Amino acid sequence: MNPAISKKYNINDEINGGVNPRLKKIYTKLEGNNLDAMIISSAANISYLTGYLSRDSQLVISRKSNIYLTDGRYFAEAKKYLSGFKLKRRDCSFFKAIGQACNGLNLKRVGFEEGSLSFLGYTRLREQLKRNIDLIPTLNLVESLREIKSREELTYLGKATDIAAKALEFTQTLLSAGIREVEIAAELERFVRYNGASSSAFDIIVASGLNSSYPHHLTSQRRLKENEVVLVDLGVDYFGYKSDLTRVFFLGKINPLAAKIYAIVCRAQERAIARISPGESISEVDKAARQYIAKAGYGRFFSHSLGHGIGLEIHEGPSISSRVKDKLKRGMVFTVEPAVYLPGKLGIRIEDMVRVTEKGVEVLSGALDK
Amino acid sequence: MNPAISKKYNINDEINGGVNPRLKKIYTKLEGNNLDAMIISSAANISYLTGYLSRDSQLVISRKSNIYLTDGRYFAEAKKYLSGFKLKRRDCSFFKAIGQACNGLNLKRVGFEEGSLSFLGYTRLREQLKRNIDLIPTLNLVESLREIKSREELTYLGKATDIAAKALEFTQTLLSAGIREVEIAAELERFVRYNGASSSAFDIIVASGLNSSYPHHLTSQRRLKENEVVLVDLGVDYFGYKSDLTRVFFLGKINPLAAKIYAIVCRAQERAIARISPGESISEVDKAARQYIAKAGYGRFFSHSLGHGIGLEIHEGPSISSRVKDKLKRGMVFTVEPAVYLPGKLGIRIEDMVRVTEKGVEVLSGALDK
Repeated sequence: MNPAISKKYNINDEINGGVNPRLKKIYTKLEGNNLDAMIISSAANISYLTGYLSRDSQLVISRKSNIYLTDGRYFAEAKKYLSGFKLKRRDCSFFKAIGQACNGLNLKRVGFEEGSLSFLGYTRLREQLKRNIDLIPTLNLVESLREIKSREELTYLGKATDIAAKALEFTQTLLSAGIREVEIAAELERFVRYNGASSSAFDIIVASGLNSSYPHHLTSQRRLKENEVVLVDLGVDYFGYKSDLTRVFFLGKINPLAAKIYAIVCRAQERAIARISPGESISEVDKAARQYIAKAGYGRFFSHSLGHGIGLEIHEGPSISSRVKDKLKRGMVFTVEPAVYLPGKLGIRIEDMVRVTEKGVEVLSGALDK
Repeated sequence: MNPAISKKYNINDEINGGVNPRLKKIYTKLEGNNLDAMIISSAANISYLTGYLSRDSQLVISRKSNIYLTDGRYFAEAKKYLSGFKLKRRDCSFFKAIGQACNGLNLKRVGFEEGSLSFLGYTRLREQLKRNIDLIPTLNLVESLREIKSREELTYLGKATDIAAKALEFTQTLLSAGIREVEIAAELERFVRYNGASSSAFDIIVASGLNSSYPHHLTSQRRLKENEVVLVDLGVDYFGYKSDLTRVFFLGKINPLAAKIYAIVCRAQERAIARISPGESISEVDKAARQYIAKAGYGRFFSHSLGHGIGLEIHEGPSISSRVKDKLKRGMVFTVEPAVYLPGKLGIRIEDMVRVTEKGVEVLSGALDK
């Protein structure tokens, strides 16, 4: 039996059954912040803490009780797959349901996720909570745990990366003059599902010719032409865990400008990857690629940060940017994607996924040709 | 030339070039709320007001200036496709950039979208605005305009519905014992893109057998079996506009329970659709389906509301629920999707898209078999 069949919703066996080590870490964080409880609104955070792929739910975490709130659309499913949490079906608004859950627990200081709850959500929630409960904003409390991947999470991320890499190899066979960008995306969407992915992780970007000069081009009806570049940016969802890789292909003859830029971006990526190890400043990794591109004369055409953490979300911590002051830690997984976009001409981006190891770095997508 | 080629980003010709009628309506709303300006954070609202498919941007609207803020990833593209707005590239946080944009305009009362801005966003924005600017929460200011579709929007929605209906017809040819749910989704993802869709509008739901009893099943590796139901819920994105339809298929012999429930859900949908006309209470439309299902003895197994508005977002106003007090208006487009989910057995949902006409209703997906 394909193990995936039994793992449809339960994404992390390590926290199902027995003591949930992630909850224990949250309890410690609650105590550090002098909080009695915490309301979790981010779907990815809820999936992480429960090990169950969560949609449209809210979680109330405290030493007294851990309550999972959802509605009629998800109740039966959650009842079957969720374990270790008190499951409540709400037939009123979330705010009322959270209020009811908290008001009964004799709480004084309750944290909420200020990045995930809307201003309206905050106001409504405040109205539903007893006056003597303080509602305290918190930031990245669960997200900071998610930055360091466990061995099981790495297995999932590795699988998601392998499927994406396979899809990029397959892309070679699809390229010919006359095919539309959206048709290539169609074939890739099909391919990743036949190769074990639950779905693609985001709308696959196929950017041909001039379209490659837009970093986040919307895949269009444009037909490929001879002697052009084709940029393909894709990722898959493997039971909740995401991948994200980019390669640029050449249709026909390689234009000398494209070849030159390609070599620069490729070297820039090598420089950045060579800097990755535990304890290294994140800004230095970004700088290694950025300075190389700048010295080659294309600095102002690398118009975004070097990369982003990836896991249950496509974009999560750590951000790999020149503005980040943190250091790398073992177990972090992120993209390294230097690029040069020449307006009116073309764009080249090369994106791989890496993991910070005990002493250095492993390129998860290292087997994929560049 | 396929008209879609030129319409990659500019989704609404009616507001490109000349006076933008949607902005004019917003100005009137600003005056009604005694606001000098409005910060728009919802991507769908920004797309609606600009006619340009917006990602990761913010908009500042006022009689003095209309400013579109985005970053390096989207700047070149926006510069090419966006018209009638002052385009600013931000190299700092959104909050700082919005602050700079507002502080220069001599504003006193600035509205923001309390449902779309996070609590953190609000706090950061407050810090960046001059002390004498009041930051005022607003709700559904743009969304309420979006509830009534223009003729051009109806063309897009009609096209999105047609492609989804075609995909559901195609589904028939895919069904056979042994094929996995995810493989059916793979073929459908491919199909919709070859038939004019930009992408699917959400992860296609293929729920076979017992899986159909979960309203929002995650498409899995399960293989179809003879004499089972297969529920398929899919929609596409056609240049920003979405569709959403559901059909249930029978593989092999129709089980008598499935046939019975199917007939009930089908009749319930007919009852609801028959109630739709301008001026009718939304709650009455929900009630028409719900009471029919309840009388048949399955009331507690219809565990969600009857439908939802659809347009630039899959779920938008109006919500078609028993709790809504509003009345239907001409030009509204929404789903009608009664259902019965029998735990441990099966689920049947039938979902169509309808438009409120001058005197009654048009079922956009009316040509699709039930």
